[in-house]
Amino acid sequence: MIEILRQHIIDRLGNDVENIDDVLERCKQVKVKRNDIILREGETCSAVYFVAKGCLQVFVYNHDSAEITRDIVTENNWCSELVSFSSQQPATENIRAIEPSVLFSIDRVSFQALVESVPQFDKVYKQILEFSYVNSVYRINSFLSMNALERIKWLMEYRPNLMTRLSSKLIASYLGISPETFSRLKSKL
Amino acid sequence: MIEILRQHIIDRLGNDVENIDDVLERCKQVKVKRNDIILREGETCSAVYFVAKGCLQVFVYNHDSAEITRDIVTENNWCSELVSFSSQQPATENIRAIEPSVLFSIDRVSFQALVESVPQFDKVYKQILEFSYVNSVYRINSFLSMNALERIKWLMEYRPNLMTRLSSKLIASYLGISPETFSRLKSKL
Repeated sequence: MIEILRQHIIDRLGNDVENIDDVLERCKQVKVKRNDIILREGETCSAVYFVAKGCLQVFVYNHDSAEITRDIVTENNWCSELVSFSSQQPATENIRAIEPSVLFSIDRVSFQALVESVPQFDKVYKQILEFSYVNSVYRINSFLSMNALERIKWLMEYRPNLMTRLSSKLIASYLGISPETFSRLKSKL
Repeated sequence: MIEILRQHIIDRLGNDVENIDDVLERCKQVKVKRNDIILREGETCSAVYFVAKGCLQVFVYNHDSAEITRDIVTENNWCSELVSFSSQQPATENIRAIEPSVLFSIDRVSFQALVESVPQFDKVYKQILEFSYVNSVYRINSFLSMNALERIKWLMEYRPNLMTRLSSKLIASYLGISPETFSRLKSKL
């Protein structure tokens, strides 16, 4: 499994992979079951996670205690609650495994040591930040500019694997529409 | 005006401000009038901008050619279309001055030279990326979990100056609600 993470880093840095073993040594493998909570709102986020296998849901609760899905993170991507991880303040989001998953976690001390001492790790971190930022910008624009039907079509085009891996309830939550609207529109497509 | 940018960098780095003049030398002052377009969808974004004075709107057009406001950037913040700036692909967003503004622009060559050669600049860039990412995460969660009234209340609490600086049309666009809904709900508050 650690080879997936090694390849992920090599893919981002090309041949510039000196010290990669320093990075991998600090990554702790964590196996989680379906529905395991990795981070709970109010706790302090103590790690960043690389998803080697499986799928995580990042969510908050709205005023009616319904789950609001901010992100779905699949294999070969990173997941964390960055505000809490950086500031060590209580997390405002929850993270849950929605499939049995294999993660590699890097705790805060290791993370900061790597950013300071391994320039390649710092580079990868910046790339991930840029990617995450760009993704979230895209998601904001889609919420603002697309109606429910357009969002479903977008998901089918750009993240088709989510249509088969996630429950209808979860897809609806990810798209910011009601499960009823999702069922109704999906049957039309 | 450049002193505002100098202070912005010092505020982020504490006393760790060696080479700050190398950074400031590469920043070009740009004065823009109200409604000037700084970047147009389809063009390549060639710079990042620090807003020393004024206010910028980052927006896209939806299928009905209505403006969808992804962000409003006020003084002491940075603005760019990062995907286009990094990849040199055509921009998918527009940037417009909504007040007479004074910006400092750093072009791509200078930006990359600074990231490579001035560690403090690289640190500031990472902080800005983190801040931008965190902000956009917050914005996604608010779109997903708040109704129109809650969004208006949020704006009044957290960005009260926008309520007085922006037109009602622009506020409604920023909140992702119709101008009619905005007027109706605002009069109730």
